[in-house]
This record gives sequence, C-alpha cells and structure tokens, in this order.
Amino acid sequence: MSYKQIKNILKLNPNSQNIIVKGWVKTFRANRFISLNDGSCIENIQCVVDFETMKSEILEKINTGTSLKIHGSLIKSMGKGQNLEIKVTDIKILGECDIETYPIQPKKHSLEFLRENAHLRIRTNTFGAIMRIRSNISFSIHKFFKEKGFYYVNTPIITGSDAEGAGEMFKVTTLDLKNIPIDKKNMVNYESDFFSKETNLTVSGQLEAESLAMGLGNVYTFGPTFRAENSNTSRHLAEFWMIEPEMAFYDLNDNMNLAESFIKSILKNLIVECENDLNFLKNRLEQEDKMKPQKDRNELNLIERLNFVVNNDFEKITYSDAFEILKNCKLNKKKKFKYIIDKWGVDFQSEHERYLVEKHFKKPVIVYDYPAKIKAFYMRMNDDNKTVKAMDILFPGIGEIVGGSQREERLDVLKSRIKELKIDQKELWWYLDLRKYGSVKHSGFGLGLERLILFSTGMTNIRDVIPFPRTPRNAEF
Amino acid sequence: MSYKQIKNILKLNPNSQNIIVKGWVKTFRANRFISLNDGSCIENIQCVVDFETMKSEILEKINTGTSLKIHGSLIKSMGKGQNLEIKVTDIKILGECDIETYPIQPKKHSLEFLRENAHLRIRTNTFGAIMRIRSNISFSIHKFFKEKGFYYVNTPIITGSDAEGAGEMFKVTTLDLKNIPIDKKNMVNYESDFFSKETNLTVSGQLEAESLAMGLGNVYTFGPTFRAENSNTSRHLAEFWMIEPEMAFYDLNDNMNLAESFIKSILKNLIVECENDLNFLKNRLEQEDKMKPQKDRNELNLIERLNFVVNNDFEKITYSDAFEILKNCKLNKKKKFKYIIDKWGVDFQSEHERYLVEKHFKKPVIVYDYPAKIKAFYMRMNDDNKTVKAMDILFPGIGEIVGGSQREERLDVLKSRIKELKIDQKELWWYLDLRKYGSVKHSGFGLGLERLILFSTGMTNIRDVIPFPRTPRNAEF
Repeated sequence: MSYKQIKNILKLNPNSQNIIVKGWVKTFRANRFISLNDGSCIENIQCVVDFETMKSEILEKINTGTSLKIHGSLIKSMGKGQNLEIKVTDIKILGECDIETYPIQPKKHSLEFLRENAHLRIRTNTFGAIMRIRSNISFSIHKFFKEKGFYYVNTPIITGSDAEGAGEMFKVTTLDLKNIPIDKKNMVNYESDFFSKETNLTVSGQLEAESLAMGLGNVYTFGPTFRAENSNTSRHLAEFWMIEPEMAFYDLNDNMNLAESFIKSILKNLIVECENDLNFLKNRLEQEDKMKPQKDRNELNLIERLNFVVNNDFEKITYSDAFEILKNCKLNKKKKFKYIIDKWGVDFQSEHERYLVEKHFKKPVIVYDYPAKIKAFYMRMNDDNKTVKAMDILFPGIGEIVGGSQREERLDVLKSRIKELKIDQKELWWYLDLRKYGSVKHSGFGLGLERLILFSTGMTNIRDVIPFPRTPRNAEF
Repeated sequence: MSYKQIKNILKLNPNSQNIIVKGWVKTFRANRFISLNDGSCIENIQCVVDFETMKSEILEKINTGTSLKIHGSLIKSMGKGQNLEIKVTDIKILGECDIETYPIQPKKHSLEFLRENAHLRIRTNTFGAIMRIRSNISFSIHKFFKEKGFYYVNTPIITGSDAEGAGEMFKVTTLDLKNIPIDKKNMVNYESDFFSKETNLTVSGQLEAESLAMGLGNVYTFGPTFRAENSNTSRHLAEFWMIEPEMAFYDLNDNMNLAESFIKSILKNLIVECENDLNFLKNRLEQEDKMKPQKDRNELNLIERLNFVVNNDFEKITYSDAFEILKNCKLNKKKKFKYIIDKWGVDFQSEHERYLVEKHFKKPVIVYDYPAKIKAFYMRMNDDNKTVKAMDILFPGIGEIVGGSQREERLDVLKSRIKELKIDQKELWWYLDLRKYGSVKHSGFGLGLERLILFSTGMTNIRDVIPFPRTPRNAEF
C-alpha cells in the first residue's frame, strides 16, 4: 500500500479504511495525539496512539520535528478541531529530532530568528503557507498568459549590455580577482575573461523581450533579476523575480488594462485555491493587529483586502493630476512630507505614492504620462514633448508593484533620446534594428513577484516571501 | 473593431466578415498576395490586394519585414495552400523595412548567420517554431508538477556556497576590478563586497531544494543555472535553464518512475498542442536529411521519434550491467571508442552513452547504481558500499538529459563522505541540519531544459534553442 499526501487524505470519507501517512510531527500531546504534517497543506492530520500497546522506545522518540511513517485506519474524529483522524496501528520512526537543539520549537519564533534559520523555517505554518501561496501565484501567472496566447521566453541573465540603466549591477567574471589583467590604458583587459568582455547580471529582460515580441507577438519573461543597490529596506532584494510581458501592437491603454486584469486574475485564483493558507495568514495578522494601537490596525482583513482589489476598478490618473492632488493636500501644505511636492516634474517618493493609494483614493492607482525627464530612454514620447507613455501601478502598503510603458517605436525619436541621455548608442545597435525593420507600436510592464506576494500574504518584510533572500552583506545558504 | 491574432482568425468560418489583422510581411508576390505573420502561429494568412485600386505609394512599401495593419473581409480561398484568405480593403503601413539592409531575406539563412542576428532570427519560421515549442514545454512542466501536488520554489541564483561542485563557477562581485582589496594573508578581502563574502552563480538549486522539500514535501525549481566551463560544444551553454524536482519520501525507484512519466507527459502534450510547429520542423529535418549520405539519415522522422519515446518504456539498467555490455561490444573490442572500457568504475563518455541508446537498446535508457567514486557526495550509498543510488537518463542524439539520485539521509554516512571528498564541512552546516532533525529518505533529479528542446525540435546545436545563448567569448545582446 502506498502512502497518500495529507491534502488528499483530508478529502476522503472516513470508513476505517487502512491508510499510510508520512510526515513530520508538529506536536505530540498527552502521549496520545500526534499532529502530523507533510507540507502538502497547512492542515495537520491527527493520529491517535494507544500508548498502552505502543512500544515505549517508539513513543520516547516522538518529538516536534521527528519524521514518521504511520499505519492506521481513517475514522471520524470525536475531538474538536478536525473532522477525521487516524487510529494508529503502527509507527515507524524515519528520522529522530533532538528536541534540545532543534531550532523550530512548537512556539512562536521571531521572523528575524527564522531568517537566520532559513533552511528550517519552511517547516513552520507561516512559511509553509507563504511558499504555497508563492507557488500558486507563479502558476497562475503562467496560466493567465497561456490563456491569452502569450509565449514564455527566457531572456539572458548574464548580459553584456549595461544600457538599460534600471540600477546598479553585479559584475560577472571568471578572472582571478587577485590578478586582474590591466591594459596599457589602465583599464581592465577582459580578453581572458570567460566572455572576453565586461558582463553583468541583468536588471531587466525588457529590451530582449521587445526583440522577441517583434517576432512572436505577445511574450513574457518570468525570471530572476538583480540590483546591486545598497538598500537595506524591507522592500528591496538584491535578487528578486520579475515578470515582464511585452506586447506587439499594444498602446499604453491596452497595457494598463492588461496589467489590471492580470493582477486581478492572479488574486482571484489565489482566493479560491489557497483558502486555508490565506485564512491562517489572516488570523496571524489579526493577532498582530491586536498588539498595535487602534490607529495602526488594518481596516480590512487580509482576505477582504484581496477581494477589494479583485472587485474594484483601479484608479487611473495622469502624473499631472496626481501632482495637483499631492501639491494641494494638507500633508504637503503642512510640510509633513519628507519631500515637499512643489514643482511639476519631481519624482514621487514612496510617501507620496502611499498617500495617493492609502489616503486619497483608498484603492490601487495607476499613474501614467510621467515627465520624460524622470523616466527611461525607451518610453514613448507624447505629443506634448514633455511626458512619456509610462505607467506605474501603486498598491496599498507596498507602493509600486508594476512599472511599464509604451515603447518608443520611432527610430529618429529613440536615437535622439539616447543621445540626450548620453547612452552609448553602439551598445544598442540591435535594439535600434527593431525600429529599422518593421517597427510597430508596442508596450510592456514589469511586475515584481515578491511585492505581489507581500501584498497577498500580509507580510511586511520582503525577506520573508522568498526562500533564501539576498540582501547587502547576506548571501547565506 | 479590434484586431485578432492570426491563430484565432484561422479557426473562423469565413463568411465575408470584416476583419482587422496586424503583423509582418513574410512575402509579397505578384503585387497581389501578402503572406502576413504575427507570431501567434507558424501559419501566415494570405491577404489579397487589388493592386489596381490600392495606392501605389502603399504597395511600394510592402516588403518582407514591413509591418502592416490590414482591413478586409475573410473569405474562402480558391488558391492552393490555404483554406481562407483576406480580401483586403485597406492597408496601413505601420513600420517600413529597408529590403536592401534587412538581414532576414525570404530565403534560407545559415544557422550561424542567424546566431549573429539573434535579435531578428525569431522572425524566421524555424526560430518561431522552436520558441513556441520552448514555451509549450515550459508550461507543460509547471502543469505536470501542479497536477502532482508539487510546489514551485525559487532557490538562490547568487550563492555563497561552492560545495555542490557540479562545475566551474562564475564569480559575482561589486568590487572595483581595478582595485581589489587584498588582506594581510594575500587573500581577497571581501569585507567591502556587496555580500561581504565570496559569491558565485549557482550551478544547481538542489541542496536548497532539499531543504524546502523537508517542509513542503514535493517541490521543484525551474530557473537558470550556470557553468563557467570552457566547453565550446554544440551541447553546452554557460547559462541554461534547469528543472530540479525534489521529493520527500521518494526512493531511487520512485525517482526514476517520476522522471520517465514526467518526460513522457511533456512530450505527449507537445505532440498534441504544437502539431503545426512540429510538422514544420519535421519537414525541415527531412530536407536536411536528403542532403546527407543514406547512413547518416534519421530512421524515424521528428514526430515518430517523439511518439516513440512516449509509447515505449525506458530501459532501466545498472551501471554494472551497462559496463558489461560496453566492455563486450564490438566497438570496444576493436578499439573504436576513443575511451576504451576496461575497468569497472570508469565514467561513461558521450560515445558510450550514445552506443547504449542508439545502437544497443535503440530507446531511452536509465542507467542507475553508479560507482560512488564518480558521483557526488550527497548520493545515497548502497549496501555494497561501492555504488550509489544515482541515475542518468540517456536520450538518442542528446546523451544525458536527466541526472538524479536518492540523497544520503544518514548523518554519519553523509559526514564521512564529505570528509572523504575533502569538502569543507562548515559550508554545509545547514545541509547537515536537514539530517539532524527529522531526516527522511528523499530523491530528486535535474532536467536540462535546452537538451529536451533539442530532442523535441530536432535541432543539433544548443545555441539554437535558447533566445540569446551564452557561450565562451559570446555574451552579445
């Protein structure tokens, strides 16, 4: 007889059928009740032992963390908290667990402590729930695009181009760091490096995705991206996962609509498919809220927040209109913002984005038509020659979750933007080719996976929604 | 009226309905027949122009590569080669294409030439088909694991550990290469580097995936991996995508069975869902075969080969039995192998693997129970104390497509293997923890995505199945 995942056992009709289950002990109470979990779902299965007939050398080894193989019969549970349980006939100890040194005790641990034990934290309810949600969201992303006729593409991780300029980059090299070859001009000589040129880790697959969209139509990437910025915040990772769709023939409006329906579709799936994990995290948040002063508590619980996003239209507003709202709001007039909004053209900071979303509109906001000066060279210039067809989606508690734009499809305009911004045009020869040969209007955006998971789980530190976070001074495991 | 993807137009019943289509011109014949493609599928749609009423300044701009928006009515085609066509009422030129300089002419290009134009090669039939197949396979992989109750996990790309030892690694650093800080012991001082330690690009997510499987049960990774080996072959990339499932409670046999059903399921989906792309590639291969001497031609065509894998059991054979076959085969006795098989314990080379698969068994082969000496430290030692529970799946034309093993779950055995192989045990403290606390039997494998795509498309150079290949001295785009 083969064993079944607990997720599937919990769906069965109990009629004393024989059953085998394998998993790890969550708790062992009264020498009688084993709560067993195998990671397939957040629920444990209760296994009831007759301690009078079970060998004591077995019972002694059952601790939190011990792995077991249990034979028994599945029956209706008379106890509270579960519908069914296993009446144990045999237990095999698979792996013992030294309760004295095991870091994951059956109590609440701080998130900081669990980060230091990232190799074991997946065994807690919280991290199990987060990572199952992460998996669910990832699948929904692929499914959404598949159903819309998009093709999944892999753009390079190691890149020889540094033209995108989205942020500081990590260097990739096989040179011996103790013997870097220097040429006559006192520059690094990359001739003997693996790629015979300077290479970095990608900050975005967008430019390459554009090239693929010009053949396949609608494409998307889903892969790791990197920023070597020394930002030790709860919203930044040096290594994070990004989804970047790129669509031929889409204008900015199509782009915004796609992004909105994309996010809604992912969250809708999540609510249906991860009900129990979400409920656990909802309760966790409610417990946390109880310890906060009334004013800092969340108005909506986790699931209400998700439903709110799914069921309401995002607010669409131009940069200029958002600028007016911010300039004229009380906080700005009373100089309560760290960065005062005074002149059209300033970039919005996190505090402004959160004001728009959390105080003013109280829902997700799409800001579009940004000043060209604060946006990238590849964004489509508007006829006003001052703004570009850029858009950012702002989320409560998170800030920017999506950044996108319609791309400049006109060769001459693109070239002059590149010149203006003093970017090396030679680096971009192939990108310019896309405008030389059958150029079309096109658009795309980037969604930071971890930011969406932050929102979906109610967690507040981005280090807690990726298995092994990479941040300044931290590359453990 | 919004435009439709050609893939969807081709499914319609033609009744002179108005239609808008956007795409790129493949060919323009007789000033009358435009073959338009939008990347949604390999088929073009034929658009028939009345050149007597169409403005000549429009017609003059229609070349291979020009992007167009076409209005017209969808009718039954009287011509050969298509069931329906668009009777054009209006054409808008979206982007011109200078036929004099456009590299992608309507003729056969060499694959080498197309690699140099990797930003445009996606516009050819061959690369469109390959990348749609790549996307299909990627989705099927997620679907397979989702249906089996596996969770998708992301293991780190930048790693501080170099214990896995699967190959040469790329260094990742933010240090100024011209001013590397050196400490008193004449070693690189990583204190001021981003992570304050030496970091590399991952060669495998396995060890971290094991840690996640010990909480979630069954997990899989799907992400980029890196090898800094200077192998300029048609089977190696410096950056490639790997799928690594890891399963708690699985033994080697479960592992082999999962891998076999996994590959079969992916290929089965592909045959059904990518019929037209596969047919195109099948014909392409048949054309190529015609130019080869009879003995070098493929016995089965591309689709027959895929069906053959789907419909036949893989051959399972121990290393020792495979060794006997190889030692006693004519090629070995006549010293036709480059590496002669003489002593038990030698590693098989590509020539031996291909002999087993292509000559001896004529089907995919799973070799298992390899000599411990030629395999990694984490593989489960057999009771003979000579072999480990490793398995490789070998494919015709490709060689190794999957490598996997049952993992050593016994702390003492694992420690002594680590010592034997002189690996720094300190690096692996967290990996050893997995054996200290509730260790269980577990297994996993790695599948190289590009190798599976090579097999599925019949391409022979791995540089042609990833959009922007990374190989020694090549990191263009």
